[in-house]
Amino acid sequence: MFFASDNTSGAPAEVMNALLRANEGYDRSYGNDRIMADVTARIRDLFEAPEAAVYLVPTGTAANALAIATLTPPWGAVFCHRHAHIAEDECGAPEFYASGAKLVLVEGAHGRMTPETLAAALATTGASGVHGVQRGMLSLTNVTEAGTLYTPAEIAALTALAKAHGLPCHLDGARFANAIVATKSSPAEMTWRAGIDVLSFGGTKNGLLGVEAVVFFDPAKAWEFELRRKRGGHLFSKHRFLSAQMQAYLADNLWLRLAVHANDMAARLWQGIAALPHAALTHPSQANIVFANWEAGGHDRLQAAGAIYYDLRPTPEGRETARMVTSWNTTTDHVDDFVTALRG
Amino acid sequence: MFFASDNTSGAPAEVMNALLRANEGYDRSYGNDRIMADVTARIRDLFEAPEAAVYLVPTGTAANALAIATLTPPWGAVFCHRHAHIAEDECGAPEFYASGAKLVLVEGAHGRMTPETLAAALATTGASGVHGVQRGMLSLTNVTEAGTLYTPAEIAALTALAKAHGLPCHLDGARFANAIVATKSSPAEMTWRAGIDVLSFGGTKNGLLGVEAVVFFDPAKAWEFELRRKRGGHLFSKHRFLSAQMQAYLADNLWLRLAVHANDMAARLWQGIAALPHAALTHPSQANIVFANWEAGGHDRLQAAGAIYYDLRPTPEGRETARMVTSWNTTTDHVDDFVTALRG
Amino acid sequence: MFFASDNTSGAPAEVMNALLRANEGYDRSYGNDRIMADVTARIRDLFEAPEAAVYLVPTGTAANALAIATLTPPWGAVFCHRHAHIAEDECGAPEFYASGAKLVLVEGAHGRMTPETLAAALATTGASGVHGVQRGMLSLTNVTEAGTLYTPAEIAALTALAKAHGLPCHLDGARFANAIVATKSSPAEMTWRAGIDVLSFGGTKNGLLGVEAVVFFDPAKAWEFELRRKRGGHLFSKHRFLSAQMQAYLADNLWLRLAVHANDMAARLWQGIAALPHAALTHPSQANIVFANWEAGGHDRLQAAGAIYYDLRPTPEGRETARMVTSWNTTTDHVDDFVTALRG
Amino acid sequence: MFFASDNTSGAPAEVMNALLRANEGYDRSYGNDRIMADVTARIRDLFEAPEAAVYLVPTGTAANALAIATLTPPWGAVFCHRHAHIAEDECGAPEFYASGAKLVLVEGAHGRMTPETLAAALATTGASGVHGVQRGMLSLTNVTEAGTLYTPAEIAALTALAKAHGLPCHLDGARFANAIVATKSSPAEMTWRAGIDVLSFGGTKNGLLGVEAVVFFDPAKAWEFELRRKRGGHLFSKHRFLSAQMQAYLADNLWLRLAVHANDMAARLWQGIAALPHAALTHPSQANIVFANWEAGGHDRLQAAGAIYYDLRPTPEGRETARMVTSWNTTTDHVDDFVTALRG
Repeated sequence: MFFASDNTSGAPAEVMNALLRANEGYDRSYGNDRIMADVTARIRDLFEAPEAAVYLVPTGTAANALAIATLTPPWGAVFCHRHAHIAEDECGAPEFYASGAKLVLVEGAHGRMTPETLAAALATTGASGVHGVQRGMLSLTNVTEAGTLYTPAEIAALTALAKAHGLPCHLDGARFANAIVATKSSPAEMTWRAGIDVLSFGGTKNGLLGVEAVVFFDPAKAWEFELRRKRGGHLFSKHRFLSAQMQAYLADNLWLRLAVHANDMAARLWQGIAALPHAALTHPSQANIVFANWEAGGHDRLQAAGAIYYDLRPTPEGRETARMVTSWNTTTDHVDDFVTALRG
Repeated sequence: MFFASDNTSGAPAEVMNALLRANEGYDRSYGNDRIMADVTARIRDLFEAPEAAVYLVPTGTAANALAIATLTPPWGAVFCHRHAHIAEDECGAPEFYASGAKLVLVEGAHGRMTPETLAAALATTGASGVHGVQRGMLSLTNVTEAGTLYTPAEIAALTALAKAHGLPCHLDGARFANAIVATKSSPAEMTWRAGIDVLSFGGTKNGLLGVEAVVFFDPAKAWEFELRRKRGGHLFSKHRFLSAQMQAYLADNLWLRLAVHANDMAARLWQGIAALPHAALTHPSQANIVFANWEAGGHDRLQAAGAIYYDLRPTPEGRETARMVTSWNTTTDHVDDFVTALRG
Repeated sequence: MFFASDNTSGAPAEVMNALLRANEGYDRSYGNDRIMADVTARIRDLFEAPEAAVYLVPTGTAANALAIATLTPPWGAVFCHRHAHIAEDECGAPEFYASGAKLVLVEGAHGRMTPETLAAALATTGASGVHGVQRGMLSLTNVTEAGTLYTPAEIAALTALAKAHGLPCHLDGARFANAIVATKSSPAEMTWRAGIDVLSFGGTKNGLLGVEAVVFFDPAKAWEFELRRKRGGHLFSKHRFLSAQMQAYLADNLWLRLAVHANDMAARLWQGIAALPHAALTHPSQANIVFANWEAGGHDRLQAAGAIYYDLRPTPEGRETARMVTSWNTTTDHVDDFVTALRG
Repeated sequence: MFFASDNTSGAPAEVMNALLRANEGYDRSYGNDRIMADVTARIRDLFEAPEAAVYLVPTGTAANALAIATLTPPWGAVFCHRHAHIAEDECGAPEFYASGAKLVLVEGAHGRMTPETLAAALATTGASGVHGVQRGMLSLTNVTEAGTLYTPAEIAALTALAKAHGLPCHLDGARFANAIVATKSSPAEMTWRAGIDVLSFGGTKNGLLGVEAVVFFDPAKAWEFELRRKRGGHLFSKHRFLSAQMQAYLADNLWLRLAVHANDMAARLWQGIAALPHAALTHPSQANIVFANWEAGGHDRLQAAGAIYYDLRPTPEGRETARMVTSWNTTTDHVDDFVTALRG
């Protein structure tokens, strides 16, 4: 029963086979491999963005930090949710890559900022001339860290506010597939049609070994990104092994099929939990993450049953709280065993 | 006939099989996987260094830049050969990671610095108090960019000079296996017994998909390195896929067997070239890289034959020059075809 | 009626005369001038800290940012009040100098953090291992940006909390003199005896042309600070002109006499304002800054009378709000004219 | 006999009086003072550059490093002479401010690069795509660190080479006045008409307490510079004291008169030295710096006579070498006493 993170799962056979195929023979290095041209073409098609520039990097932190550094100068404020991955889980990588940019934390329940909270944060900067940091950019996350979603319309409302101040907009899509599946929207609707300029298009959490694509819908800064990627040590010599993973991910809608499964498993899990009299959801579970809380004793039962997940700080009232993440290879048995163990 | 770089080759079956095995089931993420513990143990054994701290990163640039940033403060001078990879081929990654440290270029024929040239470079810094950058560290490369070698004794002579000034010493071992094989020395002799404090232990050029180990013989700065790695976006969530490659690399001396082959192919190549009346070696070929020059016309014949390699700037006298690199899967046929085509 | 800032005032005659005296003859440069030795001795005496290392820089932003960069690594969280000068008024200088460190904003009414709010902020970091920034340091400000004070005991309570986590503590004393006078405490009581490791000892706002001293009570990092100062372009060649200002500031308690006057003028001002039926203080005025609010119409009357001060965003209820700062050369006439104009 | 540096001299009466005048009354802070508007107008007139953006900073290192960071991205190579002040005497400030840019050292006798040596350095970069740093900018120094000069035509030849690669050009004019006087050229001829985009216009070495102007002939990056200046801690609150110095410097050609004197004293000095049978000039002395060498024994005689200057490393043949700098207040007596003492 592995629910600690989607990154405790490996990769599906399609991806492993693609690696084996890519390994045959020689190929050019540093992104000039034959597969990468196909990856770029597929992503442009998928996003209905024929001019998009596409780059592969090995981790989500690299994708986010490099994208942010490309979009904002060092004196720019990066508006993001208080609990964004870039704020809490990247050890300051965005500040490092952006030479000391400042993250300005935006409030909002269940991991989501709102136009009101974003406007409030925007109002805290930009009014003191040279003395304060300047407004730099907006970074959203979908699926959010709380397992909730923005619809394309909600994203558009937030980016509109940013763009009224001339700010470029980034989307951390570490779980982009899960968001697409859950919102039944198209990649274009979720991104550039909703005002997103650069996307971190996640692959690792959804079945790759370690590949994320950074997609610039406006390629004006593409060369700068390439230099930043190299300078960050993220340009792979045997780049074909990144390309092959992403190619397999996109082929035959594998990326969507994997996410459908993960989301379905999460739905089965939260419904099971929510039906228990002593348990409740902490956040609405809208994709493949479930936050729940329950009366004391649940942790003991679950751990006795071998469940692996994050137990979080208890509530002030003493209820136990937890985070469970499902993945492309979570089984219904694991889900049902979890609920059974929690029921007691 | 692929001689452009050892990174145009893929990976041997042992490595691909290891990836497939590692993919089974769930495992902990971010370096806490079961395989990594074994990798650490193997590297400690191999280097006779039971306290060494071992970290995996995906590229040689990441390994070098992170190691350098950990060893020198931003105001430190990094002494390296004028043509070191960190000086010429990493787009300033060391300066970026080390927050603006300065590389001080050391002269020396055939890619090798000497105690005399290092002493001359050391003398250019450290004499002006707070006004100049401080002496920071030494970074050597073995195999050098010119395809030549340092013996352990030569390394020890250079590190002794550095240590007389209190400087830590780094070895860029992107082709460490080739150097070990060629010098018939042990990993310990080439590193900590010769004064090396931190090693970039290359795997990618010698048959991995993309893994380098950074080995700290003194673990005092291990935690700092972990933070820098995370902050650089180089901590893999599905880290087991890095560990598995390195584990396979070390098992049954695979890393040495691959390098023996690459070096043998280079020897066959340079001997073939050197025997041609109109061709000559530019640098002594001591591992798996051959620099040669020949009378005009060679490039045309080679390209007509489908040879892929680097053609470099001609000599002032108009002789054509080139770099050829052999790898773990270079064939004798390819070598012989190359020589035949060049002979004309 | 100049109440915009204490930095719209010039310097008293003692300081100008000191510059004229320092200008005679030749002197060594870059901090090796004869006057600096006396300045160091005086500051050590004043702070009862015979080992302290003392450096002069020209601006408060330089003093703070250099001190912070010396105290925390780039992955350290700097705990400071939400409205600290380093957070709001230095255009990200601390993040720049500290190579991307993150400021973690601590809440608290009237510009003051409390042990409770600091503890809450400390709890947001340090629990996620390598994934989050590490706890780095505490930075307090006295007089606060709200014109309020910390007593030495309050400082000690906050630094004790920080030191329980092993964190060094910095005090931004841009208005240190005003705080010393208002709290009737000694420099030692306010600093190292209360757990402060490094002080930005302000001079500019209290009558100098542009000099702040950075005082390290523990000199272990003194040389690192010197290198950072030089590297930041803050080491003056004709350093004697900084030394001379600071020497005059310290002689005959000039620094305290200037602050006594500024504080007295602020007291006269806030008492005058608080006595008006339609006006009120926004924050307790405890040193030389007055935050007040009043019924609409006040700004018009004050501006008609030629008063210069900051008019801030009105309250939600429509009351006008303002910040007034007094200085060493504010006159009672100016104060009284201000109150008269506001009264209407 | 003070010949250690022009920065061991103080300031002339005109400058001190200007400070006293500027000290009267209140003035706006942070560069919005009344005097600064006049300074900008005067510099625009002087340089025949009505659009120029003008900023004041306190040190030459700040002027250079901020200018460089504004002109080149972090992955840019800064071409400068091997012995440039930015390369040897600023503790890596350019690398720090430019977030890790790399200085590429250009050779050339007597402190001067030539079109040939610059072309050779340019050829070492830019040919390896994303793998190497990109060509970033050119930085020249006039008067050079060797006390020699570039004529406007020589500067134009070098900037033409840079501009053929699209590179912006900076001039470190820490001794700009001495260069103008010595070459009998106009400020416009020496700068923008010769291809210079940004000038560090020195004041400190030529009689100010601590002020340099940074002049952008194209104001497109002016706002970026303002943000960088603030972020570097170099925006003075009581900025009027910088403005006043520069205003006095420019009034009545004071800056030129001071430099004429310094250059005259250097000429008297080098002529005196060159006439001695056992002494010789190391570099042509063309402004206010004299490099000389002499038979052993000279140092002893000079030091016995109380002369203060830099004694440099002896020549391989054992001749003593030295650097002497004259300033606006060097006296003929000092010069003559020096020569007398050296004669022995």
